[in-house]
Amino acid sequence: MATLSTLPTPALVLDRAIAARNMARMQGHLAGVAPGVLFRPHLKTAKSIAVADMLFDGARLPITVSTLKEAELFGAAGFTDILYAVGLSPQKIAPVQALREQGINLTVVTDNVAMAAAICAAAGGELPTLIELDVDGHRAGVGFDDGAALIAIAAALGPNFAGVMTHAGGSYALSHPDELAHFADQEAARAATAARLLEQAGHACRIVSIGSTPTGNAVRNLDGVTEFRAGVFMFGDLVMHGVGVCPLEDIALSVLTTVIGAYPERGLVIVDAGWMALSRDRGTAGQAVDQGYGLVCSLDGQVLGDLIVLQANQEHGVIGVRPGATTGLPAFSVGDRLRILPNHACATAAQHGRYEVVAGSPAIVDTWERFSGW
Amino acid sequence: MATLSTLPTPALVLDRAIAARNMARMQGHLAGVAPGVLFRPHLKTAKSIAVADMLFDGARLPITVSTLKEAELFGAAGFTDILYAVGLSPQKIAPVQALREQGINLTVVTDNVAMAAAICAAAGGELPTLIELDVDGHRAGVGFDDGAALIAIAAALGPNFAGVMTHAGGSYALSHPDELAHFADQEAARAATAARLLEQAGHACRIVSIGSTPTGNAVRNLDGVTEFRAGVFMFGDLVMHGVGVCPLEDIALSVLTTVIGAYPERGLVIVDAGWMALSRDRGTAGQAVDQGYGLVCSLDGQVLGDLIVLQANQEHGVIGVRPGATTGLPAFSVGDRLRILPNHACATAAQHGRYEVVAGSPAIVDTWERFSGW
Repeated sequence: MATLSTLPTPALVLDRAIAARNMARMQGHLAGVAPGVLFRPHLKTAKSIAVADMLFDGARLPITVSTLKEAELFGAAGFTDILYAVGLSPQKIAPVQALREQGINLTVVTDNVAMAAAICAAAGGELPTLIELDVDGHRAGVGFDDGAALIAIAAALGPNFAGVMTHAGGSYALSHPDELAHFADQEAARAATAARLLEQAGHACRIVSIGSTPTGNAVRNLDGVTEFRAGVFMFGDLVMHGVGVCPLEDIALSVLTTVIGAYPERGLVIVDAGWMALSRDRGTAGQAVDQGYGLVCSLDGQVLGDLIVLQANQEHGVIGVRPGATTGLPAFSVGDRLRILPNHACATAAQHGRYEVVAGSPAIVDTWERFSGW
Repeated sequence: MATLSTLPTPALVLDRAIAARNMARMQGHLAGVAPGVLFRPHLKTAKSIAVADMLFDGARLPITVSTLKEAELFGAAGFTDILYAVGLSPQKIAPVQALREQGINLTVVTDNVAMAAAICAAAGGELPTLIELDVDGHRAGVGFDDGAALIAIAAALGPNFAGVMTHAGGSYALSHPDELAHFADQEAARAATAARLLEQAGHACRIVSIGSTPTGNAVRNLDGVTEFRAGVFMFGDLVMHGVGVCPLEDIALSVLTTVIGAYPERGLVIVDAGWMALSRDRGTAGQAVDQGYGLVCSLDGQVLGDLIVLQANQEHGVIGVRPGATTGLPAFSVGDRLRILPNHACATAAQHGRYEVVAGSPAIVDTWERFSGW
């Protein structure tokens, strides 16, 4: 049987015990805050039927996706209640309708009248659509309190109008529990405000969908909300650690790598995990602790002091001590193995075609395919 | 027939006419400087048999690769003279030997005595190995003038010793033609110095391999060098443009995308190409002109003033005018199509499973698979 010592490197390692624990904790927290609110996990991080099977214990619960490819493949695997949470373009109406004809109850989003009108023209009343809200100036969306704009879009959608959704991506920039809790409550309250404005104008808001991993762990009040979404929480990563919602021991993903050169005189070690295996994500660069291209652990997952991946080329990672740290570089030899915790689970996982699954020990207990593309 | 207007987005577009022109120019330059030096293109950017067929006009010339997966797949397609240019680890000796037994003349590299001894113990004299040199403090390698270290490794390699190689990655930090030419000549001279030190100690240096895209375009003197490698030149990108070796019109790769939201009041447009389609590479961030996550072009490939991708989430790209620019945002509508020139061709291509091939017009003339993984 393969183990972390024998697997070809680089490889993406998923500890399923940690991921299952992360899933149970998020479900438990949300159920405690608001038992009537639907939890709709985002599977853009996982992109794997086997991971979904593990997370949901084989059930086919409502999910969120970021591409039509995800909708297609999770739909084919039996997930029939799917929110495609990226603004629709006119060219994607026909593919969405084709998926719905296969029995997938796909809900879409838009934030503008032109697209709403295109949906209504193409779909009659057959395509449930949420209006995307801006609650924090993060990215897309209609201002949550811009009643005129909201009502105009709902009117253009006609019978396709199903509710509102938002993603409080601004929460990623926070790091204090009080800030996160406030932000989470604000996200819920603002989405509820938009829903109220629409309801008052006669547009029944069946769905009020919010969520992000940082706010999911912090939210205290979901009044007026019908469903909550989060994705990266299931694997965790160093960015979420920097935001304060993920202890290092809750990070379920790592990249297994092998030392190919040791340079104690320069304080550096080179491994066979470069950016192709780690991704180019530098999401911790703007946080209080910059983790370079990843934090270095021993084969059994113990963090090795202040060792980080300082530099990454395509297939070379350069490991050394974090700038400013006083600890030295441990002695490494060519052939030694290490595990790198990723900055951003979504980006690192996307560099790999499969998960090598462990369950708290070095044995590889399973290999799970993951998909990519659009 | 599919065109740039009908293709599902996001998609990776390769203009084969531009790539072929880039290939011809690099070959021509190197042949002009030193007709006896072998050109050994690096296929880590392309990762596609069809691209190799196009570049080499069907021939099976010597190539460079960055993974054993590339060696295996290009080998199976008939490329039998392959340099695996990433330092070997002990665990990879057996897979390399297996590929050699399939008739692939695979050459490997190392920069340390421990690995050299492991190669000699495992392979007898059957595994041609180059000593990796450090000529610019960039990454791996033995100091090019450290005769004692070089000779110790060559001795440990025994009959496997085949020569020296280096990659002057430091050239990526330059931007002036004179600097590049000097750096290129220095790379050649330093590799030749290492070879001379080894020859003087009785270790025949059959191969002296150097190269990078910036130095490939600039090198004037290849005395003492037997082969030259370069990879990203075939596609070009914004980083190479910043280095000064690639006019924008020589960039053969772009990401096709569709507008999903327009916010003229905020000066922003959102498209369906986020970092999943563009990569997280921010290689131009440290250059004189920061191109964000990519430079925006019209559907026919014309650069649209100072429009760049300011921000990237997984499936959302936020386009706006470059900070400091005085031009305004053109009017865009949902459904409009754009093309994004990538910072780093290797990283952006790696996000996609295929190339949609054009030849200077909107028609998609072919679709070429590309591979990934290790």
